[in-house]
Amino acid sequence: MTKSVLLLSGPNLNLLGEREPEVYGTDRLDDHVSRARLRAESHELTLDHLQSNAEADLVDAVHAARGRHAAIVINAGAITHYGWSLHDALASFDGPIVELHLSNPYARESWRNRSVVAPVATASICGLGGLGYELAIDAVAGLLARQGGTT
Amino acid sequence: MTKSVLLLSGPNLNLLGEREPEVYGTDRLDDHVSRARLRAESHELTLDHLQSNAEADLVDAVHAARGRHAAIVINAGAITHYGWSLHDALASFDGPIVELHLSNPYARESWRNRSVVAPVATASICGLGGLGYELAIDAVAGLLARQGGTT
Amino acid sequence: MTKSVLLLSGPNLNLLGEREPEVYGTDRLDDHVSRARLRAESHELTLDHLQSNAEADLVDAVHAARGRHAAIVINAGAITHYGWSLHDALASFDGPIVELHLSNPYARESWRNRSVVAPVATASICGLGGLGYELAIDAVAGLLARQGGTT
Amino acid sequence: MTKSVLLLSGPNLNLLGEREPEVYGTDRLDDHVSRARLRAESHELTLDHLQSNAEADLVDAVHAARGRHAAIVINAGAITHYGWSLHDALASFDGPIVELHLSNPYARESWRNRSVVAPVATASICGLGGLGYELAIDAVAGLLARQGGTT
Amino acid sequence: MTKSVLLLSGPNLNLLGEREPEVYGTDRLDDHVSRARLRAESHELTLDHLQSNAEADLVDAVHAARGRHAAIVINAGAITHYGWSLHDALASFDGPIVELHLSNPYARESWRNRSVVAPVATASICGLGGLGYELAIDAVAGLLARQGGTT
Amino acid sequence: MTKSVLLLSGPNLNLLGEREPEVYGTDRLDDHVSRARLRAESHELTLDHLQSNAEADLVDAVHAARGRHAAIVINAGAITHYGWSLHDALASFDGPIVELHLSNPYARESWRNRSVVAPVATASICGLGGLGYELAIDAVAGLLARQGGTT
Amino acid sequence: MTKSVLLLSGPNLNLLGEREPEVYGTDRLDDHVSRARLRAESHELTLDHLQSNAEADLVDAVHAARGRHAAIVINAGAITHYGWSLHDALASFDGPIVELHLSNPYARESWRNRSVVAPVATASICGLGGLGYELAIDAVAGLLARQGGTT
Amino acid sequence: MTKSVLLLSGPNLNLLGEREPEVYGTDRLDDHVSRARLRAESHELTLDHLQSNAEADLVDAVHAARGRHAAIVINAGAITHYGWSLHDALASFDGPIVELHLSNPYARESWRNRSVVAPVATASICGLGGLGYELAIDAVAGLLARQGGTT
Amino acid sequence: MTKSVLLLSGPNLNLLGEREPEVYGTDRLDDHVSRARLRAESHELTLDHLQSNAEADLVDAVHAARGRHAAIVINAGAITHYGWSLHDALASFDGPIVELHLSNPYARESWRNRSVVAPVATASICGLGGLGYELAIDAVAGLLARQGGTT
Amino acid sequence: MTKSVLLLSGPNLNLLGEREPEVYGTDRLDDHVSRARLRAESHELTLDHLQSNAEADLVDAVHAARGRHAAIVINAGAITHYGWSLHDALASFDGPIVELHLSNPYARESWRNRSVVAPVATASICGLGGLGYELAIDAVAGLLARQGGTT
Amino acid sequence: MTKSVLLLSGPNLNLLGEREPEVYGTDRLDDHVSRARLRAESHELTLDHLQSNAEADLVDAVHAARGRHAAIVINAGAITHYGWSLHDALASFDGPIVELHLSNPYARESWRNRSVVAPVATASICGLGGLGYELAIDAVAGLLARQGGTT
Amino acid sequence: MTKSVLLLSGPNLNLLGEREPEVYGTDRLDDHVSRARLRAESHELTLDHLQSNAEADLVDAVHAARGRHAAIVINAGAITHYGWSLHDALASFDGPIVELHLSNPYARESWRNRSVVAPVATASICGLGGLGYELAIDAVAGLLARQGGTT
Repeated sequence: MTKSVLLLSGPNLNLLGEREPEVYGTDRLDDHVSRARLRAESHELTLDHLQSNAEADLVDAVHAARGRHAAIVINAGAITHYGWSLHDALASFDGPIVELHLSNPYARESWRNRSVVAPVATASICGLGGLGYELAIDAVAGLLARQGGTT
Repeated sequence: MTKSVLLLSGPNLNLLGEREPEVYGTDRLDDHVSRARLRAESHELTLDHLQSNAEADLVDAVHAARGRHAAIVINAGAITHYGWSLHDALASFDGPIVELHLSNPYARESWRNRSVVAPVATASICGLGGLGYELAIDAVAGLLARQGGTT
Repeated sequence: MTKSVLLLSGPNLNLLGEREPEVYGTDRLDDHVSRARLRAESHELTLDHLQSNAEADLVDAVHAARGRHAAIVINAGAITHYGWSLHDALASFDGPIVELHLSNPYARESWRNRSVVAPVATASICGLGGLGYELAIDAVAGLLARQGGTT
Repeated sequence: MTKSVLLLSGPNLNLLGEREPEVYGTDRLDDHVSRARLRAESHELTLDHLQSNAEADLVDAVHAARGRHAAIVINAGAITHYGWSLHDALASFDGPIVELHLSNPYARESWRNRSVVAPVATASICGLGGLGYELAIDAVAGLLARQGGTT
Repeated sequence: MTKSVLLLSGPNLNLLGEREPEVYGTDRLDDHVSRARLRAESHELTLDHLQSNAEADLVDAVHAARGRHAAIVINAGAITHYGWSLHDALASFDGPIVELHLSNPYARESWRNRSVVAPVATASICGLGGLGYELAIDAVAGLLARQGGTT
Repeated sequence: MTKSVLLLSGPNLNLLGEREPEVYGTDRLDDHVSRARLRAESHELTLDHLQSNAEADLVDAVHAARGRHAAIVINAGAITHYGWSLHDALASFDGPIVELHLSNPYARESWRNRSVVAPVATASICGLGGLGYELAIDAVAGLLARQGGTT
Repeated sequence: MTKSVLLLSGPNLNLLGEREPEVYGTDRLDDHVSRARLRAESHELTLDHLQSNAEADLVDAVHAARGRHAAIVINAGAITHYGWSLHDALASFDGPIVELHLSNPYARESWRNRSVVAPVATASICGLGGLGYELAIDAVAGLLARQGGTT
Repeated sequence: MTKSVLLLSGPNLNLLGEREPEVYGTDRLDDHVSRARLRAESHELTLDHLQSNAEADLVDAVHAARGRHAAIVINAGAITHYGWSLHDALASFDGPIVELHLSNPYARESWRNRSVVAPVATASICGLGGLGYELAIDAVAGLLARQGGTT
Repeated sequence: MTKSVLLLSGPNLNLLGEREPEVYGTDRLDDHVSRARLRAESHELTLDHLQSNAEADLVDAVHAARGRHAAIVINAGAITHYGWSLHDALASFDGPIVELHLSNPYARESWRNRSVVAPVATASICGLGGLGYELAIDAVAGLLARQGGTT
Repeated sequence: MTKSVLLLSGPNLNLLGEREPEVYGTDRLDDHVSRARLRAESHELTLDHLQSNAEADLVDAVHAARGRHAAIVINAGAITHYGWSLHDALASFDGPIVELHLSNPYARESWRNRSVVAPVATASICGLGGLGYELAIDAVAGLLARQGGTT
Repeated sequence: MTKSVLLLSGPNLNLLGEREPEVYGTDRLDDHVSRARLRAESHELTLDHLQSNAEADLVDAVHAARGRHAAIVINAGAITHYGWSLHDALASFDGPIVELHLSNPYARESWRNRSVVAPVATASICGLGGLGYELAIDAVAGLLARQGGTT
Repeated sequence: MTKSVLLLSGPNLNLLGEREPEVYGTDRLDDHVSRARLRAESHELTLDHLQSNAEADLVDAVHAARGRHAAIVINAGAITHYGWSLHDALASFDGPIVELHLSNPYARESWRNRSVVAPVATASICGLGGLGYELAIDAVAGLLARQGGTT
């Protein structure tokens, strides 16, 4: 059976391509999601995507993913830095979790140096811009393959 | 007239019984609420319950409780540790407020050591697992009785 | 063409006039908004207002204001102190942003001393109670006039 | 065989009813102990009580309780905040330990925010005044029952 | 009787218009004072002004204002961040005190984030450049009117 | 009726005259107490003295002084820096409390810079060596006289 | 030859008796100085006094006191907490230095807990109100007598 | 012309496969390098590799890479957390730099939370074990392609 | 004349062999003392031992050791981390002082990383379990021999 | 035209040669200034000098130097560590600024480790005693020469 | 088969006997090693020794010791306080590790209070000067004996 | 006999003229050394120079300089901020040590504000670019002359 990956995008990512393009690039979120989906399909994975500016929506989505998705890729936006509810939700998910950022938060303002996602994430990929979406899918594919058998 | 207590449950508590049972026990939230309601009835109190993963829902519920509920029992989940809006909402509530946690947050990760609920709570009960729900109701009944006359 | 100002009110401001009147005064939020609107009209500005207890609603409103409103006046309530998603949203807005508080958060509890709005705000007005709404509109009018020609 | 609970009271609790009644209430320690004992008996538990202003006495009492008492309820007074010897003693006790405070130390001076008892306590009950003594006994009874069989 | 307002300007404000115009604007201090005076007159207030690079002069001026001026508007320059003597002097003044800054110190170097004026100020207005002088006078007029009767 | 003053001496003060004479002087504790008693008598006060190396003894003595002594002079030795039980005991005492140190703890190791006695003391006298004992008695006499009538 | 003592009073002490009488008492500075002078004369000491709101004046006075005054009593007001220039000046003075405060700064706001005078003072007397002036003179007399011979 | 990538491995990575396999996996460093080289070749890139336990060797290698290699992939081992000389060396390199870790240092001991490499790295990939080597090469290939034309 | 060594054991060490044997080993305190005494005799030293759960007893014992014992070996248990009175007592002892711990406090909880004994100890021996007692005696013998002649 | 250098000396430097000669040397300030002037003349520079114990005088002098002096050499004494007004004044000066200290503040008390001058100084010279004055002039001459043409 | 111990000496230990003899004693490193070797032989252990000023050499030596030496005694000199690479290397070693210091780093400058060796060491011996080398060997012998059988 | 000075250059200084010329200037290290040597010869001093990217090489060089060089000028590069082994080595050198930096580390990133060289350096010269090399030699010449007789 085809496994499925959940891609979660947090606050302000709906503005991608418009907001601070010198930091986050000119591609829109849809562009990134499309390429991620193509990449997922190349690994025989399906991809669901949700963007929300509300932490609670991300929490709900993680809950719903339990038992339904094999892995989560999450770019939680600024919620990365204070969303402990999301932290607790992710801690309840059994599959691999890949933390994704377009820029490198560890090289920016000090409040972006703390990630509440990191302690519950399997892996993190930062600073690659849109390229990161494709690599995060590759990472998930690799992690799932490593877990047991081919994807 | 019968007094009413509002029981509020924050993020991830809907997963009770599923998430980290070694920390939070195997009972589901409904089980806890049912027992709390029975206990409330034994004190001639009614119990309303709301669970939400969104801080704003908890804030709204506290606002609605003003003038309608005699007391609040709140297990705010991880919002306990950063939800200053909830803090301000609770500060506007006149009756007793009992902070409730299944585990003891003061004995876990350092970010769980700060509670935004504590400075505006009358009392706190931590670390008793599901048992805490019943004791929190007993506490509320006692506090209300102390305030003035029989419940 | 008439320019428009967006006035945003965060959590618990719906309780204005009821909650801690000794700190926040006895006028209700509607009273403040009405006076602010009159003042805006005196500057030939229109005023839209949104109050929400949810950070995500404020983020959405800031996104919607891009290209539609000329300026933002924001009293983010307690979200001022931890809402980094709102910070990122405001950073994407091109016009002047005036941070508004009824009391002076820099003279209260230490957790109210850090504002996530301040680093992305043009100006801030604190401690004037309801009077601040009118002055914030005056400030916006002045900032817009300074930007280019008459309002 | 009837199980026994040890109730320990730390420094200055002998002044209960006299010292700062607006914080700690007007009941004397004996009143609290008597009610706790009645409550214990209702659970078919016996209750021993020791009050001392000396940390060493509390340490000795904990040592003596090993193998003799089934549970400990402890209100360590100000020793709560610096008595690491007591912490080590409690760590050597096998049964449930309930930390008890009349007020809520997490809502008072910052030096009262750190508890050396918390990391080794099963549960904590704070801010309920004298009512806490009865609830602490209920909590112990519940914890013992949960451990294995009826009390 | 006409009420009088004292406008105090601290160190380096005599350089306004010359020093870092990209931060502080091109108007000179005299320009700001003149406009503030006009604005004061429109409220039937008189305005006295003192600029000094010495904290002691500001302290002396605050002392002299006791019983003579109805309100103080103060831009203490860098003394804002370490002048505790000025803090104590302002604490002895009975009327409203408005803290004024041309830029927003809470959005600059961390040492500019602490204000010794804030704990004793009624209100603060920051980041509006020269416009702030006029708004500060409006604020004072409003605060005095609120205190009791027309100005 | 003659009022009585309690002089309390904490750990290691029994070694006065022997331990680090270059810091604490060569007089023995008895010498200091004798001179303090003479001085007390000159104010028509009696003086009781207790030295103990145990914090609990000091706590007990403060409890016993309630209603019996008019004032306390206390040199708590190193307990000054961590004895929060003593802090709570002193907070229960109604009369004036004078904190006394032979050396100036605020000019020594950083752990000696925090005093748990200071927040509950009326006054403090440090760095005068044995002379401080006489001045502390004078201070107490003055404080009692100020309270009401002659001593 | 009669020895002379320099009494220095820092910022805002000229307001004594007017400013916050509940903290600082109702006597005026002149009253305190007069009583201190009488007390000095009883020890066959003369007393010079200077009050200034400027740290530089205090520094100048300390310099002038070198070789002319036998001791310094200093209540540096708020400069106590940041005046490192005064610290360096006092370090150059050979005789005894007594730090004096009407209230106990170690029991007030945290910024009043650090004294730049303490590390270079022989002794400190705090919290005795006006009484402290007389005791500080007694202390100086005692310290000078201890140094060598009669005063 | 074929571009070349420099892969740098810091202290203790020579033990890969032997040291803490539960954290770092069972593959040896040679295995990782071989797979990375294959992956590089698939992008028409060549790969040079250096492992050293000495920070100076890594600094020298970065210097030598200037003008010779198009990009650097670096797993600096524990030097990541204190090697500011390496930081300065990397700052002098013009091409993309990818920071690589087998585990996620942001989820381990606090001293592993600070990376001196992060502020000068283009991107980082953590927590993927050996898989990370291949993804880091993909990342470099993508970054070089983005810079200008085909690799 | 035979020199004598004082071995001091602080709180909870009376539980050795019972409490957390995986951390502290299975030997009882008496076993350790007996072996230490034998070892002392092999160096022609006598050994006195005191265990107490009260800091004051340890302080008293150190006082009594002045002039009677040639050296002190002290395992102060948890008092190591907050017993500043003991620190001051040890500072008054002239001979060598060896700090002893069964486990290595510098590798455990952060509050065990600060030792009040260390600044006044000649040497420290940690982490060797019961073996440490014998080595501490060897250390003392060596230190005494180094001081002057044979023991 | 001959360029001119302003040498500024802060608090307590008027005591040079008298105060703590083991730290600051035995030469008087005049001696240092004379040698600095000779050295300036050897570079065809003139030297003006001002010493003051008042920060405001230094601020005024920096203001006056704008457009009149080509460079500033400043030993701000203890004001170095808290004089943010001086910092702002120096930031308004266009020419090179050399910070000068006789001792090395970075090797002394921790409060001397922060310099408010450093962030706005071109260079600093510390720890050379009187020799530093001549080198500072050499430094200024070199910096002016580097700026453009001969001095 | 005879077991072997590796003794490692870090930076500046080659200067032993020359550098700060009042802190480190007058014996040279060779003297210490010789005595340690003799002591090892008395336990039927052989001793290898390496001194290096380079952290990488110590790391290499620890790697080489894996499987070859039964235990390590290490005095890492100043690398003790920042050499996290050495920490990781030692963590890969299976046998007992004894941390050795001639002086007591926990009683010196604050940067010497943190040891990167402590968390991975079995035991530590500090402050015994040269004597420590012999005791460290005794400790190793004891630890090896405890592990299993005679050495 | 001619005295000799050792000039030490730490990591990355070999890149001078290439790396970040806007910070460090365009001259190469050889240029600086040549000018420093000429300057040394003008003082009848010889100059030896070593550059290394390895801290251990700098430590070795300092050891070798003991008894051979009269003074050390050291620009330790980034090792300035964490090389405590170098600190200990420099502490063993008897002659004057001048710390040299091309830029002013106290005005850059916070991690560059701590110097491990400063506590053991006689003097420091920062921010003068290449000019600093010549002044450092002048400083050394002056310090040696001050020590005793002409160089």
